[in-house]
Amino acid sequence: MENQELSDPVHDYEDAGEDAKTPLRLWLRMFSCVTLIEAEIGRRLRAKFDISLAKFDFLAQLYRSPNRTMTMSDLGTTLMVTGGNITGLTDRLAREGLVERHAHPSDRRSRLIALSGKGRMTFEAMAEAHEEWIREILSGLDDGRQEDLMAHLGTLKTSVLRAPRKKEK
Amino acid sequence: MENQELSDPVHDYEDAGEDAKTPLRLWLRMFSCVTLIEAEIGRRLRAKFDISLAKFDFLAQLYRSPNRTMTMSDLGTTLMVTGGNITGLTDRLAREGLVERHAHPSDRRSRLIALSGKGRMTFEAMAEAHEEWIREILSGLDDGRQEDLMAHLGTLKTSVLRAPRKKEK
Repeated sequence: MENQELSDPVHDYEDAGEDAKTPLRLWLRMFSCVTLIEAEIGRRLRAKFDISLAKFDFLAQLYRSPNRTMTMSDLGTTLMVTGGNITGLTDRLAREGLVERHAHPSDRRSRLIALSGKGRMTFEAMAEAHEEWIREILSGLDDGRQEDLMAHLGTLKTSVLRAPRKKEK
Repeated sequence: MENQELSDPVHDYEDAGEDAKTPLRLWLRMFSCVTLIEAEIGRRLRAKFDISLAKFDFLAQLYRSPNRTMTMSDLGTTLMVTGGNITGLTDRLAREGLVERHAHPSDRRSRLIALSGKGRMTFEAMAEAHEEWIREILSGLDDGRQEDLMAHLGTLKTSVLRAPRKKEK
């Protein structure tokens, strides 16, 4: 099987919830869809641009920031990865000339990371391919189903964001 | 805002795709739903059971395996984490008495990890709470919408699994 490598564990994960009631099965299915799509995007980024998903996400965050610049610590928070990983990613991307480090104008202990001109052009090419891949990957759903899904996920997202954050139960 | 800490970056991520065509927005919304729900489950596991999501996933994999036992390398593949992390997680879970290490009967270079009796009881209590939390978190969607979502995600999953894996494009 061509896709055995990745699909099996995820498949098992959902199958494990087969006897479970609907909400748990729905969650496992949603989780496995996202995991499968992310893995496929990761494979394509690697094949076409020789870049990891982590680096792509890093560049995407910078691209969307004002002046395409962020502090190291904001990048860590947004990407939800630890400081050590951010330092390593920054080192590698700087070596490839995709990002630049600058001194922070008002906080000497803080460093700014900026997308370089080369980084911007590289990211724009990748973002275009990424959008096309997503369109292709989601094309198994017709427009009506995509709209339904969009609406239901919107309801879900709103209700998750409104739910009280439980510290204890 | 109570949930600012986590929801903002994710929110921004979806907002960044606002001008994009539907498939990309749908993907970003699906991704942010899963990220938000996972983070909420992580918070509740930490608060109620003082355990990380990574440890919970590790115990869940063992629980679902034949004899509740796996080799170290199969665990790594299934959890999609690197060897170093598996070793660290195993060390910590073994110290808490939740898993046990055994020699592999036929492969001297391989080590088996088994869920202990304590690990099994602990996991079952967590799994029960987890299922209840998921029910609560998804309760913003009525039964009809949950069924629709289940069906659409099923179509999506099938089409992603059938899609040719592109190594180049």
